[in-house]
Amino acid sequence: MPTADHALLAPLANALPLVERASRMPRGFAAVGTTAGIKASGRPDFALVVATGGPVPAAAVFTPNRFAAAPVRLSRANLQATGGTSATCGYASAVIATSGSANAATGDAGDADQAAIGVAVAGAIGDEPAHVLHLSTGVIGTRLPVDKVVATIRRVVGEGLEYTDLALGQAAVALRTTDSTTKMASVTVDVPGADGGTTSITVTGIAKGVGMIHPRMATMLSIVLTDATASPATLRELLRGAAAVTWDQLSVDGDTSTNDTVFALASGAAGAASADENAAARTALARALQAVARDLARQQARDGEGATALITCHVTGAADDADARAVARAVISSSLVKAAVHGKDANWGRIAGAAGNALVAEAAVLEAAGLSPADAAARACQPAAVAPDRMRIAIAGHLAYDGPAGGPVGIDKGAAREAMAAEEVVIRVDLGLGEGTGEAFGCPLTEAYVRENAEYTT
Amino acid sequence: MPTADHALLAPLANALPLVERASRMPRGFAAVGTTAGIKASGRPDFALVVATGGPVPAAAVFTPNRFAAAPVRLSRANLQATGGTSATCGYASAVIATSGSANAATGDAGDADQAAIGVAVAGAIGDEPAHVLHLSTGVIGTRLPVDKVVATIRRVVGEGLEYTDLALGQAAVALRTTDSTTKMASVTVDVPGADGGTTSITVTGIAKGVGMIHPRMATMLSIVLTDATASPATLRELLRGAAAVTWDQLSVDGDTSTNDTVFALASGAAGAASADENAAARTALARALQAVARDLARQQARDGEGATALITCHVTGAADDADARAVARAVISSSLVKAAVHGKDANWGRIAGAAGNALVAEAAVLEAAGLSPADAAARACQPAAVAPDRMRIAIAGHLAYDGPAGGPVGIDKGAAREAMAAEEVVIRVDLGLGEGTGEAFGCPLTEAYVRENAEYTT
Repeated sequence: MPTADHALLAPLANALPLVERASRMPRGFAAVGTTAGIKASGRPDFALVVATGGPVPAAAVFTPNRFAAAPVRLSRANLQATGGTSATCGYASAVIATSGSANAATGDAGDADQAAIGVAVAGAIGDEPAHVLHLSTGVIGTRLPVDKVVATIRRVVGEGLEYTDLALGQAAVALRTTDSTTKMASVTVDVPGADGGTTSITVTGIAKGVGMIHPRMATMLSIVLTDATASPATLRELLRGAAAVTWDQLSVDGDTSTNDTVFALASGAAGAASADENAAARTALARALQAVARDLARQQARDGEGATALITCHVTGAADDADARAVARAVISSSLVKAAVHGKDANWGRIAGAAGNALVAEAAVLEAAGLSPADAAARACQPAAVAPDRMRIAIAGHLAYDGPAGGPVGIDKGAAREAMAAEEVVIRVDLGLGEGTGEAFGCPLTEAYVRENAEYTT
Repeated sequence: MPTADHALLAPLANALPLVERASRMPRGFAAVGTTAGIKASGRPDFALVVATGGPVPAAAVFTPNRFAAAPVRLSRANLQATGGTSATCGYASAVIATSGSANAATGDAGDADQAAIGVAVAGAIGDEPAHVLHLSTGVIGTRLPVDKVVATIRRVVGEGLEYTDLALGQAAVALRTTDSTTKMASVTVDVPGADGGTTSITVTGIAKGVGMIHPRMATMLSIVLTDATASPATLRELLRGAAAVTWDQLSVDGDTSTNDTVFALASGAAGAASADENAAARTALARALQAVARDLARQQARDGEGATALITCHVTGAADDADARAVARAVISSSLVKAAVHGKDANWGRIAGAAGNALVAEAAVLEAAGLSPADAAARACQPAAVAPDRMRIAIAGHLAYDGPAGGPVGIDKGAAREAMAAEEVVIRVDLGLGEGTGEAFGCPLTEAYVRENAEYTT
């Protein structure tokens, strides 16, 4: 067991594969990103991803928001229809994403709009509407300009989608709303081949941020493509597990969107052994998915509305991992901690206060992270174990609070202030209670966030 | 049953007694507020309230924060010692409150400091330290200047505490930290006398705000005094029930403090019938406590750090009251709703999004609000029932969303903007599902909040 010193100062052990911030296109897919005219700005607002060989296994994690948008509801229905047993996995041959209008809280008319878009995609690619998955993002309560979207579908399919990294990158650009960066992450790893030997699989995710982000049994808009082989149910299990320790540990502003969705599609085109049957293939796919999801979550936090830095909280010494993740999430979600980081103020008291207030995640998230249903039910929403006289806190490499040594250690606030000017401010909390570890990703609370969101629709 | 129109446009039925924002001193107490020199600014920072006839029944609600401050831990121990059955009710003859240092995260030394203060109070008033309750507020992680506090205790007790409204008002002033107003609320109502006939009881609360406020099974610093008659256990039950529908529905910034405490002391000096035995006396005391707590919560929200207005959310038509309170709390806690109100932007989509994301309170809060333990356990942290096609939303008197009529109604944003310039912005949500009602209190998120909290300790 590491000593408290070691735990507090060393980064979390990270056995995940290397991530490249690139839009490597996995085999078996083609894509396009373009402008359909939804956004008044004229910026790209339309993305279409197609599985070129027809329907492939697909999995989803959706927002739990009761005000789920039309694209969320239609995608659920389609997965239910094609998978037969669940609204979160089935088969799909296309993902259509529009940006500029969320098509949320638009009533029956919004449902009809989204259905018409699905029919148009299916008609253009020669498949059924049930094999089309939907994403949309933007202002709540505005209708999508269906005619423009349908005309764009026909145009881009007529011109031909491309199997290129550039095309997938353009799709990522089109997902953006208030994002200042394009979010993409890619992992390529070796796995056993379906017919023996070795092959490589690629997992690439594209995503948007950057406001109304506080995933809760969900994520924000992301599309993850892979040429690995997995059944819908396995793909869902691995995707949900990855989200539970990455996107579910991300907060920009505490609001969970009406449109949060992540889709994963697995084309099987790499000729890899199936993750359903081959343990090495399963582990490799699971780790690649987690690495991609984690890196996208970090990009999303760093680009949070008004953010000037990435805040990460690493927790060690927790009674277990669920407690560690709860404490990390509480710290990066605290408005007071976020404002203090903005002010480069090593205000460890607020970190202590937030940690002392941490509640373990909901049962669904705990189950996704590997707890048994009974354990998840017993732990859900319960306080995390925190003992002030065991806890230690370091901010940007500076020890600030040392419970076993009596508490405050007289941190050098000037030196800490300089260290907090970095792109990434790391807050480490060692709870001194056990071996649980966890991390979470957030961003500073700034005047720019307030300005941007006080004036968003006016 | 009221129609949806009626429910959406009429204020919540409010049968609570009238509240006066004054520091009416209930019989049986004396108080002082003065400067001990804890705050560098020289502002008042010391309050002492004494039950002049010796120990009286006392009840408390404490923060659930695991990083509970020294005054919280000592008060719990003292109530346990004097009540015998619980750490939240017993007997007390004094409340000492210091402002400028929270005495939180100060380790054993902080505990010793607080104990020395208790010994000094007890010595000065001729009682035991176990009958002294403690409050402190201010920066986390700094020690209290015990010598100054002890010298002030001796001075003010030597000079004599006063039974006057002014003295209680000065105690309220001394509780303030970043508050811009002094928070006090008082109710006087008739109740049956102990020996027949009628008498009047007074319930007066003093409190502080205004940051790190997001009560969770708790409240922020408040002292409630009454000359009514009640046992410790009854006083606790009525106080906890009042807090569950008032302070637990208040949020300034989503952070729950390490020092949150409310104390209620009942001197019995009004000669009223006991609330333990007389139903009319019990009801009158319960409603007076609720009225005082509700008004203090509204003052605290209005004066939230950086706030320019009070945001109240009234929810009607919920499946039950627990759901209604959950939705109201979700709406006023949303950073995006808070920023939109700051921008006078009638952004109903964010209200819908927040409502769709509402989770019912924790079990302890539900029990305090009247649910059975079994019901509370089953409902705790579960999503509130929300159906977009049944919901209606009005902002500052302007209907914005009408689910049964198809959704968005084309709100006049200019007119709404004018209405949102008021001191109090009322958001009404009718869920169209049942007869549950609830309310919650919050404040806008402003650049001033960010500035104030980015620079607090530097």
